[in-house]
Amino acid sequence: MVCASGFFIFTIIKELMYRSHDCGSLRFENINQNVTLSGWVHKSRNKGFIIWVDLRDRYGITQLIFDEKRSPKNVFEKVQNIGREFVIQIKGVVIERESKNSNIKSGAVEVLVNELNILNKSKTPPFTLEDTTDGGEELRMQYRYLDIRRNPIKDKLIFRSKVSNTVRNYLTSEGFIDIETPYLIKSTPEGARDFVVPSRMNSGQFYALPQSPQTFKQLLMIGGLDKYFQIVKCFRDEDLRADRQPEFTQIDCEMTFVEQEDILNQFEGLTRHLIKEIRGIEIESFPRISYEKAMKTYGNDKPDIRFGMKFIELNDLTQGKGFDVFDSQELVVGIAVPGAASYSRKEIDALVDWVKRPQIGAKGLVWIKCNDDGKYKSSVDKFFTESQIATWAERSGAITGDLILILSGEVKTTRTQLSALRMELAERMGLRDPKVFAPIWVTDFPLLEWDKETNRFHAMHHPFTAPKPEHLDLLKTDPGNVNANAYDLVLNGNEIGGGSIRIHDQKLQSQMFELLGFSKQEAKAQFGFLMNAFSYGAPPHGGIAFGLDRLVAILGGEETIRDFIAFPKNNSGRDVMIDAPAFINDTQLKELFLKTLPKE
Amino acid sequence: MVCASGFFIFTIIKELMYRSHDCGSLRFENINQNVTLSGWVHKSRNKGFIIWVDLRDRYGITQLIFDEKRSPKNVFEKVQNIGREFVIQIKGVVIERESKNSNIKSGAVEVLVNELNILNKSKTPPFTLEDTTDGGEELRMQYRYLDIRRNPIKDKLIFRSKVSNTVRNYLTSEGFIDIETPYLIKSTPEGARDFVVPSRMNSGQFYALPQSPQTFKQLLMIGGLDKYFQIVKCFRDEDLRADRQPEFTQIDCEMTFVEQEDILNQFEGLTRHLIKEIRGIEIESFPRISYEKAMKTYGNDKPDIRFGMKFIELNDLTQGKGFDVFDSQELVVGIAVPGAASYSRKEIDALVDWVKRPQIGAKGLVWIKCNDDGKYKSSVDKFFTESQIATWAERSGAITGDLILILSGEVKTTRTQLSALRMELAERMGLRDPKVFAPIWVTDFPLLEWDKETNRFHAMHHPFTAPKPEHLDLLKTDPGNVNANAYDLVLNGNEIGGGSIRIHDQKLQSQMFELLGFSKQEAKAQFGFLMNAFSYGAPPHGGIAFGLDRLVAILGGEETIRDFIAFPKNNSGRDVMIDAPAFINDTQLKELFLKTLPKE
Repeated sequence: MVCASGFFIFTIIKELMYRSHDCGSLRFENINQNVTLSGWVHKSRNKGFIIWVDLRDRYGITQLIFDEKRSPKNVFEKVQNIGREFVIQIKGVVIERESKNSNIKSGAVEVLVNELNILNKSKTPPFTLEDTTDGGEELRMQYRYLDIRRNPIKDKLIFRSKVSNTVRNYLTSEGFIDIETPYLIKSTPEGARDFVVPSRMNSGQFYALPQSPQTFKQLLMIGGLDKYFQIVKCFRDEDLRADRQPEFTQIDCEMTFVEQEDILNQFEGLTRHLIKEIRGIEIESFPRISYEKAMKTYGNDKPDIRFGMKFIELNDLTQGKGFDVFDSQELVVGIAVPGAASYSRKEIDALVDWVKRPQIGAKGLVWIKCNDDGKYKSSVDKFFTESQIATWAERSGAITGDLILILSGEVKTTRTQLSALRMELAERMGLRDPKVFAPIWVTDFPLLEWDKETNRFHAMHHPFTAPKPEHLDLLKTDPGNVNANAYDLVLNGNEIGGGSIRIHDQKLQSQMFELLGFSKQEAKAQFGFLMNAFSYGAPPHGGIAFGLDRLVAILGGEETIRDFIAFPKNNSGRDVMIDAPAFINDTQLKELFLKTLPKE
Repeated sequence: MVCASGFFIFTIIKELMYRSHDCGSLRFENINQNVTLSGWVHKSRNKGFIIWVDLRDRYGITQLIFDEKRSPKNVFEKVQNIGREFVIQIKGVVIERESKNSNIKSGAVEVLVNELNILNKSKTPPFTLEDTTDGGEELRMQYRYLDIRRNPIKDKLIFRSKVSNTVRNYLTSEGFIDIETPYLIKSTPEGARDFVVPSRMNSGQFYALPQSPQTFKQLLMIGGLDKYFQIVKCFRDEDLRADRQPEFTQIDCEMTFVEQEDILNQFEGLTRHLIKEIRGIEIESFPRISYEKAMKTYGNDKPDIRFGMKFIELNDLTQGKGFDVFDSQELVVGIAVPGAASYSRKEIDALVDWVKRPQIGAKGLVWIKCNDDGKYKSSVDKFFTESQIATWAERSGAITGDLILILSGEVKTTRTQLSALRMELAERMGLRDPKVFAPIWVTDFPLLEWDKETNRFHAMHHPFTAPKPEHLDLLKTDPGNVNANAYDLVLNGNEIGGGSIRIHDQKLQSQMFELLGFSKQEAKAQFGFLMNAFSYGAPPHGGIAFGLDRLVAILGGEETIRDFIAFPKNNSGRDVMIDAPAFINDTQLKELFLKTLPKE
């Protein structure tokens, strides 16, 4: 009957407000009240003479009861025809529930229904809308609007909203101004690849979507606005690695008349406030580590410091003793794995195999068990004496029950391999507790990195980053050894923010562009406006940008960002729900003075 | 010396914090304190033995005093070389100012300088950076970073930040969730023209930038999120009228289980809150007017109700009396202009000329002076008796001293002409007071409008707008007379927001697409995902979107939006500061499988 015409619903609803309460608000105190509720049929149980329906909305679940004796006949008939995810409106009276459900907020009561309107029907969803679903990733993406009804996704989107609101209010209270910068800007081929937007009014020309509002926020500082922030979408047309999105969100910030110390303090304040407000955890002051020390200690500029297993360099203790695996290498470095001396030979062999996989690429793994009897058992017993090995254990701080694992090889590669092993072990041992928050500042990044392919320097952060004042002289003589006033904020092994003090001097910026291989013409064509701005009283300034997607995920205790994004794209950059990108029609192409070419 | 090397500043600054106070914070209580300030040289006065410098930053201006006797010799020498907009840092002691300046917050004191560091030099700006500048629009746009230093621009950007923060906090406190929707979506040729973004990973295919997040916010409602908002950039590739931008900002909102009444109340609450918080003005409840009545009374669906001069239709009183100018026309309609009977013949002739200009296009203007002696003097004395004219005056509510102005012609055209005249007169008479805020809801818009060119219906709001339930039957028989549950919020004669109750029924949406001339295939290709979503329990929902740029401008007491945007584009859609759009290189084009064609 309801189904005969979709229109019929309007006439019924005309006199009604859709609801007097939401599905999460009824309590013991509401007993005997007449209420109107609207929501989705989450599930129903039919006992023949009595039917219970869980009515669901964003706020919770309320149990409805349809009773052959106590509900009107037509209502009891109508309820037989409703299915999962039907949208209904009911009127009824709140009664005490016999078997209370303390898991849901309205679990003390139920509503005895005396009027039922079916607002919309639903086909059977292609996957179950429970906290744990039977739907695969691609199917859930295609029906994202259904996936969002599930608590885990819904809660993550609400959580994200809370985080961004907390960020905004904190920064506003600190005097930052929220300023929108443009989305249709100019392409700068330096750095990552831009998404471009053809201009209809300027044939053959293109806008670009911003990879970040970097130059605009610097211009705002030159414009005297002093403290800027914006939560803003940014775009990078890169081949997508897992858990990267072509569009992502930054908390973008900039300040004037500041040194690195000011910025670290300001945004340590923000991060501390966030962790406190969102997770209820107080963190005192954040540790700091230089890039160099981070690489030496963790083999990684994003150290996860929720656990130990710091790197111990062992060259002096291990080399020159005739063991070629060590002797011929740049670096011999190990970690002491707490309590892992109990690993079986099979488990250890599995670890050796793990580091030998092509993804890691180590040639082998030396291991030493620090046994309960104070003795050592190792894979190199043939090459080293027990007392030699004891010196390694001593330096690494290993105690009885620990397992020391050692890699050797070229410095950079070996550190990367050991870092991967360290993270893998921590994961297996449950040391990466998502409820623990361990932020750390990584500072003193190199200004430049040498790119072997193009045979020139690239900016490690970006071309606007200021060298350390004390390294200015090196710019001409040894640019590869210049450090920058650049810093990352790392949380639980993830870079959640990064920034720098910027160049505000025209000559220094020119020199920088030159080092990066820009011709004078290129520098002028791409960044002439900024260089020009520097000549009209540009103040010292610096800033930071946080990756909101990642920050929210980590604060939420997860490492993948996708579920914290309402409508994410897949790894080919497609929105499989709306089916975009798509072909456009010839009129559109013609208006844009464009012709598409076949893929070769 | 300072100028010899731009680098030299770093070495000085190393030991200093840039400032202990900002330039707006020193007060009488700070006298005798040693302070450090940084800022821009706003202006200086050189009396030979004494030099005053106004030091400026975002927060205000502080007067510095350099005294030949009391300041160190090197400081007094150095200050001779600073010019306008130089960035300097000073240290000094706060002293009482002899001639206090009550116009600036720190006007009771000045700082006697004992240390001066020039942080950056400045060329002479191309226009004066005063509240009233000598710079033309284009020049100021090119040097926007300098224009932003001027109070009027700076204050508008800060004002905008305050408005958006107030909006966000209000909506958050009302349970709305801030959710980001995607920017890389799919082109839908219906409606305005999309900006498109070629996809490198899917050759020949394009994303489109959203004209609004319309379908996504509907999907969020289908996803059960109940209350959504977002302050979001939207894009339209249209030929730009004055004061339109290709990218603009919306406060985008949607709610579930609501009727029109719920939405009007919710967002009347938001607007009332804004006007109270931002302007300190309490407004009780907003009047409402139907689209039909607005057209009849104001000739306009964006009525400015800060003043009267309502339209009075006079057909029955004026026609059939042998005056052909009236007799042959569909509509005879007038307004009573308060106090304008004193206009001279010359002034009235100028008004007649004004309505006859091609931009307005009236054939003539009938006028009646309601003179002090109770008599009428009119341009139609020859055709009508005094007592006939008295009935017009009576109906229009004109009193002694008023001037009645009457136009006649085809209904729609005549209303448009009289509306333009009404607004022009109000402007001339100073009745459009930017400090008065007069919101009004316009409701009951037609669902469709007939387009003579394409010979088919267009959606007046958009294709997702629900017809009024009581008009559903007309959809098949007389679609042109179907009204929609659509509404605009008008403030001081500007549409600041508009929205509707949406269709949530798949069949009705199909019927709507059919009416709008979509084939089944087109509807499916463009909006299949939405139609599909409707079949999985789509709840009743509706929403509204505010144009933030315009809203902020009007709250700020202005009507042009450009100065409330940090980096606006000009009327050709160009950013003249960064010089975008621009040509991109061949590698970029090739990667995108694109070829640009010459403009014919």
